[in-house]
Order: sequence, then structure tokens, then C-alpha cells
Amino acid sequence: MMRTEVLAIGSELLLGQIADTNSTVIARKLADGGIPSYFRQVAGDNRGRIALALRTALARSDVVIVSGGLGPTPDDITREAIADVMNAELVRDESVASHIRELFAARGIKMAGNNLRQADVPAGATVMPQTSGTAPGLICPMGQKVIYAVPGVPSEMVAMIDEQVIPDLKRRMRERGTGIVLVSRTIRTWGLPESALAEKLESVVRSYEKERTEAAEADAGPGAESGARPRVTMAFLASAVEGIRVRLTASGPGELAALETLEREVAGVRALLGRAVFSADDERIEEVVGRALENQGATLAVAESFTGGLVSSRLVSVPGASKWFKGGVVSYGAEVKHKLLGVPDGPVVTRDSALAMARGVAELLGADAGLAFTGVAGPDPQEGLEPGTVFIGVVLSGEVAPSGTTDPVAAPPDPVPQVPAVLRAQPSGTYEETVELTLPGDRETVRQLAVMSGLDLLRRRIVPGDTS
Amino acid sequence: MMRTEVLAIGSELLLGQIADTNSTVIARKLADGGIPSYFRQVAGDNRGRIALALRTALARSDVVIVSGGLGPTPDDITREAIADVMNAELVRDESVASHIRELFAARGIKMAGNNLRQADVPAGATVMPQTSGTAPGLICPMGQKVIYAVPGVPSEMVAMIDEQVIPDLKRRMRERGTGIVLVSRTIRTWGLPESALAEKLESVVRSYEKERTEAAEADAGPGAESGARPRVTMAFLASAVEGIRVRLTASGPGELAALETLEREVAGVRALLGRAVFSADDERIEEVVGRALENQGATLAVAESFTGGLVSSRLVSVPGASKWFKGGVVSYGAEVKHKLLGVPDGPVVTRDSALAMARGVAELLGADAGLAFTGVAGPDPQEGLEPGTVFIGVVLSGEVAPSGTTDPVAAPPDPVPQVPAVLRAQPSGTYEETVELTLPGDRETVRQLAVMSGLDLLRRRIVPGDTS
Repeated sequence: MMRTEVLAIGSELLLGQIADTNSTVIARKLADGGIPSYFRQVAGDNRGRIALALRTALARSDVVIVSGGLGPTPDDITREAIADVMNAELVRDESVASHIRELFAARGIKMAGNNLRQADVPAGATVMPQTSGTAPGLICPMGQKVIYAVPGVPSEMVAMIDEQVIPDLKRRMRERGTGIVLVSRTIRTWGLPESALAEKLESVVRSYEKERTEAAEADAGPGAESGARPRVTMAFLASAVEGIRVRLTASGPGELAALETLEREVAGVRALLGRAVFSADDERIEEVVGRALENQGATLAVAESFTGGLVSSRLVSVPGASKWFKGGVVSYGAEVKHKLLGVPDGPVVTRDSALAMARGVAELLGADAGLAFTGVAGPDPQEGLEPGTVFIGVVLSGEVAPSGTTDPVAAPPDPVPQVPAVLRAQPSGTYEETVELTLPGDRETVRQLAVMSGLDLLRRRIVPGDTS
Repeated sequence: MMRTEVLAIGSELLLGQIADTNSTVIARKLADGGIPSYFRQVAGDNRGRIALALRTALARSDVVIVSGGLGPTPDDITREAIADVMNAELVRDESVASHIRELFAARGIKMAGNNLRQADVPAGATVMPQTSGTAPGLICPMGQKVIYAVPGVPSEMVAMIDEQVIPDLKRRMRERGTGIVLVSRTIRTWGLPESALAEKLESVVRSYEKERTEAAEADAGPGAESGARPRVTMAFLASAVEGIRVRLTASGPGELAALETLEREVAGVRALLGRAVFSADDERIEEVVGRALENQGATLAVAESFTGGLVSSRLVSVPGASKWFKGGVVSYGAEVKHKLLGVPDGPVVTRDSALAMARGVAELLGADAGLAFTGVAGPDPQEGLEPGTVFIGVVLSGEVAPSGTTDPVAAPPDPVPQVPAVLRAQPSGTYEETVELTLPGDRETVRQLAVMSGLDLLRRRIVPGDTS
């Protein structure tokens, strides 16, 4: 058993000025890798306290992963604290130092001397080479235990955890011949309120809890030391950006058995949730929509008012989006809607406006499909409409138009009244639809819920199998 | 000194299935209340491990605030773990029990027996009455130290922390004659690499550290036990989205003295960093840009390719943006650049393309200012250019055009070479500029750095005082 403890460094974390997202990310990667973690800590930028937190972690865990405090500034003192705990000297690693010098030289910048602090390594530690930034990571073995130090910059941290820490950790676990396997999969849904989702899955959850209480006595931690039969847990994660996720985790001594159990349970949950499921592999909705468009060789254009480019930026974030995404118009000013998108004069937060925007942007950018958003984000009413009032328009040319019946509109999370969609089958074979939603929450929440609902509406119309 | 440690309970936290937002919220409330916190922990739903985490916290801190594990289900075992640590029995509190019975009766729900577990209280502890939910909080004194237990449900937790824990904690601090005020301000910057920033502020930081080491012996850190003179600490927070932030924190026994010290230090740092500072009040760059446009009665339009709407969505997120933001075009497909924005045929990732896009979108949407982004986000090269190659174009009509000299372009964080800007003063009085950047990092990082650099470039051209 290699119990792993995550330690995040930063006074700004202790002051609550930023959330400790690194530890959450690392924790999920450990869980996905079947590596148990029973404790987590945060310590400030103070050499003595970092050392104390490290000693505490080493006393109750086998592995410590420290993130942060490896940078060039004076308050980056994780290296020194680790050296204290290892009771070792800091030695400058010349290869790292010259790498840092080259990095600056290549970019034609004068290097501040303090950057070389990042080349200082506790004697006995080995360096994890840096991928993008300048601060290398550290592997610090201490007898049977080990400390990994990774940079606090999220992108650098993620790369180093994935490519170096987890593989090294798994190698050590194999050598030690230990490990409860813990496998999990995340199903993403939209269109069912969380409460309805929970109701549909209630009996399943209850059966898991029953097994769990039976199996584990005193010790019911994640991963669990006990029992040969894989155990399953389910967690709901509601997010206005990611959708409502259902995460299934199976844990047990045998990987094969755990995986088989997991697959069986995932299939069962999918069957219970039906078309609300847009991915069983934790994909973002824009990835699902993009793949459907690419498979049909179709292109999309987006018109946004109050969402202000959120939809476009999510679509562009999908690698290869240029194959199917033409672009968008952010028609924030009303006159832009009229002039550029051909929205009739008069109020702009209406069904007809949403439809005209979808038609207009598809025509303007020469796309097969148009998706448009107009609404009131708040805090103040607009055109006599309450904040949260949203209209979404979809226009699909013949190639992409759905065949067969279509379900009622996607519903964002609880509690949102639905106004039935208006469907118009055009003689041309063009498919047109508008949806009215009343969304809860503040300005930002309304925007995020509208984006998800619009992308999910499109998904239900163009993803084969979901459309009928 | 009452050092406070926050301990969150929940296996789902350790599995990374949900973020530990409770601890961040509690940490901020403690900091706002001037209550120092030097460590944080997370433990799973396991009696032995919760007890161990509590003992660890009590060994290095004076106060422990535990959130979670107070509910009715079998894995809610915080009460039992606290009783173990207090070496006390759990005694059922009949007033709490009857309150719980009444709650269910009032809702006309049959109560499951395990709900009464929530009425079990360690001998010697006092109950913090419940506001909304069913689980009461606990105040568990242990000699000079104390454990507070609050529910994990965020709304219940917040109410109990605000109304009961913090007041009780402050009362204890007064009785103990301690109570350090802790005030902080965050300066936001762009254009100086983090290392250069650190170098400019090195002497300041060293002077803080000198005072710190002189003042406190073994024990230094935010909050600070010692001395009448306020102590100052500085922290750097680098973010591709928020900019590089410099947070100054002053702590001391007297609020007025701490505030005066803080203001003096903020002014000093501003002077050292000059035009790189875009806010001394932790404002986002889009707020600063928006205010400048509004003050000049000018409007802005944005053209984006690889940033895909990120710039527009950040601008729209500013309340009242409709006063100065016309909208944008996401010209992701090359043909959109040519057709809609009048970019000359040929390669689209060039200086001239960026300038044409800025001109084109300003004209198309009838705005006084145009800001345009074209570049290669990666992972693959495009038009023979490496990922990270970015061109930004700015067009300002007479009203908004800067007067006097302008500094070289904004530089994103470490280490990025600058290609001199190309400035063209048009006879019309129109001001035009293009910038080439070579940005590090992955696809998402390149996009975020480009957005910040473009908005900061505009800021330096239109914010009075920053432009010359």
C-alpha cells in the first residue's frame, strides 16, 4: 500500500484568496490511477511550516506530492524546506542551470540572477526535467518513502504529474507489489434536473450503500483495504459549465474485476438516463457536437448577444475545430443584430430575433448550421423581460437536419420551467427551431446555463441516435 | 495568539470528485476577521483518520474548525472521532433530539431513526443551534484549545461560521488578550516578466523579511504574533488570465496602523512598477479598459481568430459593457477574414492581417476602436509559423487615439521576446499599431496570454496617464 498525501504550498491558499485547485486535480489523477490518498494538507510560504507539514505527511503516508513554491521569487522556499526534512544540502545542478540560461538566451531576454535558484537540488534528489516553464520538479527518496515536488503553475503541474510522477509512483508500487485498484468513469448529462437524475438512480445508489455498509466495518475509506468483491460508489457533480456528471468508481484488489464491475454499472446507468447522457467518457459537450458535425461534413456558425462569445470560445477550444466551425458574431449592440444579421427592427430578445440571428449568421459565414442566443443576463430587466429569460435559435440545412421525431428541449438544472419548442419544417428541407428558457442564478450563471442548453439542444438534433 | 486550522471531512474530496470550496470560504472569513491560519487539512470518512487529523491539528494549532461528517448517514462519523480525541462519551442531547423530531413532523415526513444520531454530543461540548438543516454544530473546548464542528452543506456552514464560530472565536481571542488585524491589497500588473517583477521588488521584500526575522523568532508568518509595529508580507500570484498579482498584507495589533502601513507600501510598490500596474484594487483588465472607454464616450469592436471569442466574453462580463462594447466577429475560418473583414487574400497570420481585421471590425460594427487577434495556438504549426506566434492589431480613431509618446508593447510573463511594435500615425488622426508576440505554453495558455496582452496593449494606449 502506497498511501499518498498531497501538500499544496501558498499563503494565498490559506488566506482563501485563491482555491486550491491543484490538489483537487492531483487527487483525481491519483484516484484514476488507483493510488489511494487518505490525507491532504495546505501550508503557507514559510520554511519551518512547510518542513513541519512534510514531516507530518511522511509520518502518516508513504508518498508526499508537494505543489508550489519552486519558482524564482524569494517566497518560493519549498526546495529549502525539503532539504531541511531530508537533512541534506542544496546543490546547484549545472545541467538544469544551463538549461535555464539557454531558455532565456533563446528568447533573447536578460535573465534575472534569482532564476538560477530553480537549479538548486537537495543532495540525493533527482530532477524531473521541465516541459514548458523553468522550474524543474524533484524526486526525493527517503528510505521506503518519497517526496515529489512539482511546480504550482497548473499547466506545468499537470504535465509533470501525468508524464513523470504517476508513472514513477506506479513503478514503485509494482516493485512493492501493493495496490488496491480503483477505477472510475464519468457520465455527463444535460436535460434532466439534478433532483430527477437522483430519483432515477435512487435504487442503484441505495444498493451501493447497502453493499458498502455490509462490506466495510470500521474502515470505510476510499479504495478500501477490505473485501475481495469490487465496491462501487456514485457521486453527482453538478456544473453549469460541464453539465451534471455522474461519476462511478469501482475499487477492489483485482483490476480486471473492478473494470468489469465498472462497465456493467456504467451501462446500467446509461440505460436509466437515456438521451440525457451526452458522454459516457467525460467528454465536453462541444467535443460531442464537433464530432457529430465533422462526421457529417457539416459546418457551424454562432450568433451570440448576452453570452458574448462564450459559445464560440468553447467550440474553438476543441482541437481541429477549424474543420467544422466557421466562426461567430457577437452581436452585443442591438444595431449589430439589425445591420449585420438582418434581425427585424423592434425588440431583440424574442423567439423571432433568435431565429433571425441563427439564419443570419449561417448565411453571413456560409455555414450549414446556425446557432443563436439572445436573452437577459441581468441583473436588470430588459425590454420588459426578467433576467434569466433566454431564447435560443437553431437552423439546420437539409444535410444536417434531423430525421424522425425530436424530443422536447433540453432542460437546464432544477428548477426551470420549459416553454415548448417551436419547430418549423421548411419546404426547403431546412430545419428551424426556437426555444425559450427561464434560467435561474446570477449574470454569469445565466450565461453558462444558456451556453450548455444551446449546445445540448444542437447535440440532440444532430447526434445520430440522440435525435430520435 | 489563536492559530486556527481548517479540517474538511469527506472521501469525495480526497478522490478529487468535488473541490474543497468550504475550506477556501472559511479561510477567507478567518483572514477577513484577522484570525491567522497556518495549516489546512482534508481527511476521508474514516473514524481513525479523522481523529488522527484532529490530533495533528491540535498539536500545531490552537483552534480547529472541522466541516462535514455531521449528517445522519453511516459515513458521518465526525462526532465519534471528536469524542475519541476528547476521550469523552457521546451523550444524546434531548433538546436537539426533540428539535429534529419537530422538524420532520412540521414537514410531515416520517423520520428515519438514524437522524437522531445528529443529537449525539461529546460530553463537555456545547451545541451550536442549527439554522436551516438538521445537524447542529459543536463547540468542543480542550484546555486552552478548542474544536468547532460545522455541517458540510455550504449554506449551513456559512451561516454557522458567520453567526456563531467567528464571534465565539473573537470573544476567546479578546479574553486571551490577542487579536491581530490583518489587512491586504492586491496590485495587478502586466508587461513585466515575473522574474523582472521580483527583481524590481527584491530590496522591498528583503526589508520585509529582515523586519520579520527580527520581530518573530521561531514563529513568523501572515498574521504575526509579535510586536506593536505592523508587519508586511508580499506574495506573487502569476496567472495568464488575471495577470501577475502582487499581494501586500499588513498585520498588527491596531487596524489603523496596519491600514496606514499597507497604503504606504502599496504606493511604494506602484512607484517601483510604474506603467506595468493596471490596477491597485485587484480589478480585472477588462474592467479597467471598459472604464477608460466609457469615460471617453468611445466604443470598441473586437475581431478574433484563434482566441475564438475569449476577448469578447471577457468584455461582456463587465456590468454595463453595452455602453462601450459594440460586439465582435470570431473569424475562425480564413474565408470569414477575407469576406467579412476585408483581409487581403493570402496568409492570415500576419501583421497586416491583424491590422486589416482591426480596421474591418471597427468599420463593420461602427466602433471608435478596433482590436484584433490572429495567431497560431498550436499544437501544430500554421502557415509555416510556430505555435505561439501571435499578431495583435489596434486601430483607434481620432477621439481615442493616444497623445504623446507610447511605450513598447506589453509583454506577457516570462520569458517572451518582444518584436518592436509597428506604429503608424495616420493623417486622419487615426492611430494604428500592430504587435508580434511569441508566447509559450499549450494551446489554452497561448490563447489566454494573447488575450491579456491584447487587452493590456489597448489599456496602455487609452488609459490616461498610462499612455505617456
